[in-house]
Amino acid sequence: MRREEVLMEALPYIQQFHGKTIVIKLGGHAMVDPETLENAIRDIVLLHYVGMKVVVVHGGGPEITEKMRAMGKEPEFVGGLRITDAETMEIAQMVLVGKINKGIVSLIAREGDRAVGISGNDGNIILARKISAQMVRVGDEEREVDLGYVGEIEGINPALLTTLLETGYITVMAPIAIDRAGRNLNINADTAAGEIAVALGAFKLVNLTDVDGVMDRERTQVFRRLRAVETEELMADGTISGGMIPKIDSCVRAVKGGVPYAHVVNGNKTHSILLELFTDAGVGTMITE
Amino acid sequence: MRREEVLMEALPYIQQFHGKTIVIKLGGHAMVDPETLENAIRDIVLLHYVGMKVVVVHGGGPEITEKMRAMGKEPEFVGGLRITDAETMEIAQMVLVGKINKGIVSLIAREGDRAVGISGNDGNIILARKISAQMVRVGDEEREVDLGYVGEIEGINPALLTTLLETGYITVMAPIAIDRAGRNLNINADTAAGEIAVALGAFKLVNLTDVDGVMDRERTQVFRRLRAVETEELMADGTISGGMIPKIDSCVRAVKGGVPYAHVVNGNKTHSILLELFTDAGVGTMITE
Amino acid sequence: MRREEVLMEALPYIQQFHGKTIVIKLGGHAMVDPETLENAIRDIVLLHYVGMKVVVVHGGGPEITEKMRAMGKEPEFVGGLRITDAETMEIAQMVLVGKINKGIVSLIAREGDRAVGISGNDGNIILARKISAQMVRVGDEEREVDLGYVGEIEGINPALLTTLLETGYITVMAPIAIDRAGRNLNINADTAAGEIAVALGAFKLVNLTDVDGVMDRERTQVFRRLRAVETEELMADGTISGGMIPKIDSCVRAVKGGVPYAHVVNGNKTHSILLELFTDAGVGTMITE
Amino acid sequence: MRREEVLMEALPYIQQFHGKTIVIKLGGHAMVDPETLENAIRDIVLLHYVGMKVVVVHGGGPEITEKMRAMGKEPEFVGGLRITDAETMEIAQMVLVGKINKGIVSLIAREGDRAVGISGNDGNIILARKISAQMVRVGDEEREVDLGYVGEIEGINPALLTTLLETGYITVMAPIAIDRAGRNLNINADTAAGEIAVALGAFKLVNLTDVDGVMDRERTQVFRRLRAVETEELMADGTISGGMIPKIDSCVRAVKGGVPYAHVVNGNKTHSILLELFTDAGVGTMITE
Amino acid sequence: MRREEVLMEALPYIQQFHGKTIVIKLGGHAMVDPETLENAIRDIVLLHYVGMKVVVVHGGGPEITEKMRAMGKEPEFVGGLRITDAETMEIAQMVLVGKINKGIVSLIAREGDRAVGISGNDGNIILARKISAQMVRVGDEEREVDLGYVGEIEGINPALLTTLLETGYITVMAPIAIDRAGRNLNINADTAAGEIAVALGAFKLVNLTDVDGVMDRERTQVFRRLRAVETEELMADGTISGGMIPKIDSCVRAVKGGVPYAHVVNGNKTHSILLELFTDAGVGTMITE
Amino acid sequence: MRREEVLMEALPYIQQFHGKTIVIKLGGHAMVDPETLENAIRDIVLLHYVGMKVVVVHGGGPEITEKMRAMGKEPEFVGGLRITDAETMEIAQMVLVGKINKGIVSLIAREGDRAVGISGNDGNIILARKISAQMVRVGDEEREVDLGYVGEIEGINPALLTTLLETGYITVMAPIAIDRAGRNLNINADTAAGEIAVALGAFKLVNLTDVDGVMDRERTQVFRRLRAVETEELMADGTISGGMIPKIDSCVRAVKGGVPYAHVVNGNKTHSILLELFTDAGVGTMITE
Repeated sequence: MRREEVLMEALPYIQQFHGKTIVIKLGGHAMVDPETLENAIRDIVLLHYVGMKVVVVHGGGPEITEKMRAMGKEPEFVGGLRITDAETMEIAQMVLVGKINKGIVSLIAREGDRAVGISGNDGNIILARKISAQMVRVGDEEREVDLGYVGEIEGINPALLTTLLETGYITVMAPIAIDRAGRNLNINADTAAGEIAVALGAFKLVNLTDVDGVMDRERTQVFRRLRAVETEELMADGTISGGMIPKIDSCVRAVKGGVPYAHVVNGNKTHSILLELFTDAGVGTMITE
Repeated sequence: MRREEVLMEALPYIQQFHGKTIVIKLGGHAMVDPETLENAIRDIVLLHYVGMKVVVVHGGGPEITEKMRAMGKEPEFVGGLRITDAETMEIAQMVLVGKINKGIVSLIAREGDRAVGISGNDGNIILARKISAQMVRVGDEEREVDLGYVGEIEGINPALLTTLLETGYITVMAPIAIDRAGRNLNINADTAAGEIAVALGAFKLVNLTDVDGVMDRERTQVFRRLRAVETEELMADGTISGGMIPKIDSCVRAVKGGVPYAHVVNGNKTHSILLELFTDAGVGTMITE
Repeated sequence: MRREEVLMEALPYIQQFHGKTIVIKLGGHAMVDPETLENAIRDIVLLHYVGMKVVVVHGGGPEITEKMRAMGKEPEFVGGLRITDAETMEIAQMVLVGKINKGIVSLIAREGDRAVGISGNDGNIILARKISAQMVRVGDEEREVDLGYVGEIEGINPALLTTLLETGYITVMAPIAIDRAGRNLNINADTAAGEIAVALGAFKLVNLTDVDGVMDRERTQVFRRLRAVETEELMADGTISGGMIPKIDSCVRAVKGGVPYAHVVNGNKTHSILLELFTDAGVGTMITE
Repeated sequence: MRREEVLMEALPYIQQFHGKTIVIKLGGHAMVDPETLENAIRDIVLLHYVGMKVVVVHGGGPEITEKMRAMGKEPEFVGGLRITDAETMEIAQMVLVGKINKGIVSLIAREGDRAVGISGNDGNIILARKISAQMVRVGDEEREVDLGYVGEIEGINPALLTTLLETGYITVMAPIAIDRAGRNLNINADTAAGEIAVALGAFKLVNLTDVDGVMDRERTQVFRRLRAVETEELMADGTISGGMIPKIDSCVRAVKGGVPYAHVVNGNKTHSILLELFTDAGVGTMITE
Repeated sequence: MRREEVLMEALPYIQQFHGKTIVIKLGGHAMVDPETLENAIRDIVLLHYVGMKVVVVHGGGPEITEKMRAMGKEPEFVGGLRITDAETMEIAQMVLVGKINKGIVSLIAREGDRAVGISGNDGNIILARKISAQMVRVGDEEREVDLGYVGEIEGINPALLTTLLETGYITVMAPIAIDRAGRNLNINADTAAGEIAVALGAFKLVNLTDVDGVMDRERTQVFRRLRAVETEELMADGTISGGMIPKIDSCVRAVKGGVPYAHVVNGNKTHSILLELFTDAGVGTMITE
Repeated sequence: MRREEVLMEALPYIQQFHGKTIVIKLGGHAMVDPETLENAIRDIVLLHYVGMKVVVVHGGGPEITEKMRAMGKEPEFVGGLRITDAETMEIAQMVLVGKINKGIVSLIAREGDRAVGISGNDGNIILARKISAQMVRVGDEEREVDLGYVGEIEGINPALLTTLLETGYITVMAPIAIDRAGRNLNINADTAAGEIAVALGAFKLVNLTDVDGVMDRERTQVFRRLRAVETEELMADGTISGGMIPKIDSCVRAVKGGVPYAHVVNGNKTHSILLELFTDAGVGTMITE
């Protein structure tokens, strides 16, 4: 393809996106491989350069586990769910906010752009409540398990985000929320990204993961475009399963909440964000209402 | 070249140009071939889309001659210079303002963008004075010839242009000026484009012509980049000659007046403006201080 | 009458008009006689001086016909209606925009004020559609005739006008519109003036013509004030007829569209606009709802 | 003179005055005759209507004397100067602020306009100091006399005035000042008007008095225009004398302080302010630098 | 009580009041004793210092009576109501506006703050109508008595007040209103204060009087807090009586009109305003809806 | 002392501080005792309530050491200086940003106010360079020691802080800086607080520590007020020594940089900040130029 054709194709997108808000979820796996992360950061900085307001929401599960072990604290799971006691929560927060979040801010600074790293308790952005005890099957019995400092989102107060975005900062958010008693709670990063996109009236939500998008039943090809309702059918019939469920669920809820476009893109492929956003064909899956 | 590479190369330019002013001179030849003109308009609209403030200055010599003949008025030349009597001036203004200028405005509207067509007497933008009588050699004798309604620019009052650009219109300008007595005068479009670029503090001046740029002495290759001083040497030694002189002269004066970049680009090549502006290599000649 | 009485009478009007918008239609006849035109321009500049926002809409039928003949193109009429083919349209536009419009702008500049000349396709101000074929009686038969590039107004987009008026320019408009396909169409100047007055929320519409106002059936005296409904009765019973019908029709529609005052004034009488606007008695006909 | 000529003559003045500030001193005599006062108020309201910012500074000597006597307090003079003891000051303030000032505000309200009445101690507008004891000849001896609560102006703080004028109120000021100790002092109204005009950067100062202007030595005709320096000569040679001296002195100081025009006008002649301001010939004396 | 406890208690009130509007009624008795008045002024200046917008409404009955007698005019009462003829009105206005109002302005200046003194006819703030003739029992008969220049409030136009408060002036108001004919009328200061509080959307109305607040039936203790409805019961059963009725009535109407808090405070006790506003317990009576 | 006296004394301070910026350094010891910290937070929230813009800069040395040990990493010192290798830096950042900073934000949220926690690399606020290798005496020899990721401040870019303060957030800062290569460096919190106070044009710098202020040589009483020059003498003669030196040094540099007041206050005493700021006597040491 000739250069001018690429440009002719890309420029209308660039115009359309100017001044719009985009929320990008960086998955835990993107955090692990430095090259993947730097690649993503470069695309993110370019989005900011061409006039988008960019919020990055990151996870960090694998690193939390690793640090816990370094501090002699064995992660505890009951029926597949992680127990987040006070000590775990403290470590999670140190890793998410003190290491991963600030690491992303530094990478953006190295690319020559300006970022601010915050978490959902800053400016009371993400209000959550502790989730109630869960019924979990352990061996033969159903047991009620209190998962500890884990929250579900009650509301988003986007004032601080709006201020930072309008002042020209890429805003990097750790998935920590605050409850009405002023306690910090761990929350799911996919869900947080979707809710923030809705609260900001974002134009796009991009979930950067390690697969090429939503695959068909035979895992042979990627759906380029899906309507929310089709996506729900694919979840119902099991085509979408496992770890993709919370990601797609967050996309569907964002789209139903007024975000025009949600994308699932493979962070392991170079410049996948640019190609998904600035070409007609795209490289991942785009979900619309 | 891969798409993402084109984008990675182009995006920093797009960021750099955002909100900046660009003045584009459309040469008389671009006016004659509809396809060439439409091609240029498409590029111009894309520049506006990605956030530039765009002024188009056009000429129209060939069409003026044609209409004069259609109205039974034979163009008169003395020693190679056109005599612009009152009747010629009226026809010139009708062609430039009533036909060419409005034609460009309509083409932009067809591409879905908004334009305003004005001339240099609107809002007293271009103030000129009638040029004094010229000494011209006719046969064996030197004769003093009054060229009529032809002006040289005294000053630019950019207030109206600024208002239109900031309100979001591509502004299309015919090369007509006003003198202190309120008379309209014909002026050179290359010169007008350069002076307007200076007065607006433009970031770029692009002269869209029908050659690939400034050629070397052997006419085998195009200079990609020239310093103003080098350009002046090329004019002094005759490498730049003929119709290129006023174009290059206007570029040099713009650059000396604070416009960082002046470009000469071939309007007959598709999307030459985009390729010149959004790629590292470019396709024409870029002149800087 | 003593000076101070004239002032005492005029000052409240001046106060009332300050910051208000006035649309003035200059009839084709005012265009023909230079002295009449200059007289009108002087009044218009004074209105601007005392704080009004002034839009001038002009016609130009007689000059179009004259130029067509100069270019060897005989105007064609079918059953009294002019056929506007592509060539006619090009000439009309050259005359209206390139000659008459710019001529008015220059006259205003000579009076020391600032004006901008545009037409209805600039900034997509006047959107029109081509009128459908008309049934015309030619001799004994009814014939369907396509009048060509003639439009009827679909909508007014006053953004550009508002910008120019607020920035302090008298705005001079040629009666050209643009259709959805980006083609330019000729439109009736009286109708255009009325629709623009409504779209701008103008305070006054003044139709400068060559009669003293709306005359009674015996043609002995001018109605000073008429309600819209009375005016309609006068059109119904034939008291108003001929060329006055489109003018009065435009006034009535303006008044019904929220313009408080529409005036018909004789441009051949010196300072008739000032006397109509700044004295209690007036000199023309004022139409209100 | 025909109406349109009056208008043509007046409109450029109206344009020139729009948005400008005018300070009008109403002399004590204008206060005494209700018809003269109402006449002046009507002109003042018209000046406000046509866009001027109007400050009225009034005196009130005759009424103060009258009220003092009504309250059984005989005015005391030493060598021609009035002694203002605490009781006199209280009465002066009650008359100036509580009666005359509010009376003017009410008259303006009756003419349909909005006014605010204040005195120079409001918002600390006029800062003064008590004048030092004066040497006065009483009979054969020189005596040092303390005139009491009489001030000379140290400075003007125009912030409150500016706020009121910009919010659209005619501002009526009583000639009371405040000193650094927070005491109120009586000041000369002519002087106050001049200083306020300078502090506000006023365009005009009008001193409305009971003579036609500055008369020549033979008292046969009024000087229409005087330069400040000529005025000073007329004071030096005694042509200007008596009660005119403080008025003319205030005009000269205003003009030297940057007020372009100061006028002396006869308040007993109907609409003298309008005729002085809106006609070329004028009716009083205009003093310029 | 320790200093830090006083501060801890006061600071939240200070925060809550910042930027809010407070209307303070200074009763006639506060006017008579200089020390009481100065004490009140000091508190008022502190309220302004901590960010409140302060309007002071004052009365002046006792001083009016005194001045009338000084001017040989005996106050006339019919059945306990004062007759305000034109002469009485003139004296009332001189005392209220020229003496009391300006005296308060000077006191505020002496405390280092800036004030403006106006009355309700300035800027047409208080529109009133003359009250109709009252039926009064005189001896054995009912007589219809015209009370003269006494008004009841028809409406408040707070524009001027808002301008002055936002520009940073304490605004001191005399209880004078203007009627539709431009006549000044005397009005009740308690009522005026309440209506102004409602029109300004004030946060608090404070009535500074010479009792400690609303007392219970036995006159042994002060009600600290009352609901509007309780207050009305206390008026109905006679617990509140006499001169307190108009004060409490004005508080109740303010509270019902949207003013959250109305207070009755004893001006004879030092710093009673501060203690009422900045301590939890308060020292007077606070009325809420 | 009576309540009203406390208020009369405090209110002028409150007025003076309104809208001003205060930088508060929370020492490492205040971090350790929860009650001391909560006490400080309550005062800080009250300062915000009365209109101050509050920046909190915290340290965290003791907790970093503790966490390092929990993670099996023994802190290493050479000649008394801590070596900050990459692993130590990562832990320091996790503790400072992920634990202490967010802990303060949560405490503020519990007091009902809004805070944002950031560190000096966010928005590139604190630019530092790695300090050069230090000559350290170890036993008998001088050794050159590279302290690792420890920075000295090169410049402050207060844009992000200003935005957050003006939007109404208490801003909590961890002492981390960024260098030109995008690496994070540990910096001294006392120094950071002082530099930030200067860059923000703060009105006050408060260093909350665990002593009552600057003590005299005999350690018997606290200096209430010191001039910068006196403070320097006390450092020179050894009266100020040990850990107080960096605190006092930061105060002196702030004061010399234009911060009018720097305070040293004992965080262990309840409400010491309020008492220092809102009483005439104060409880700590105030340093001025």
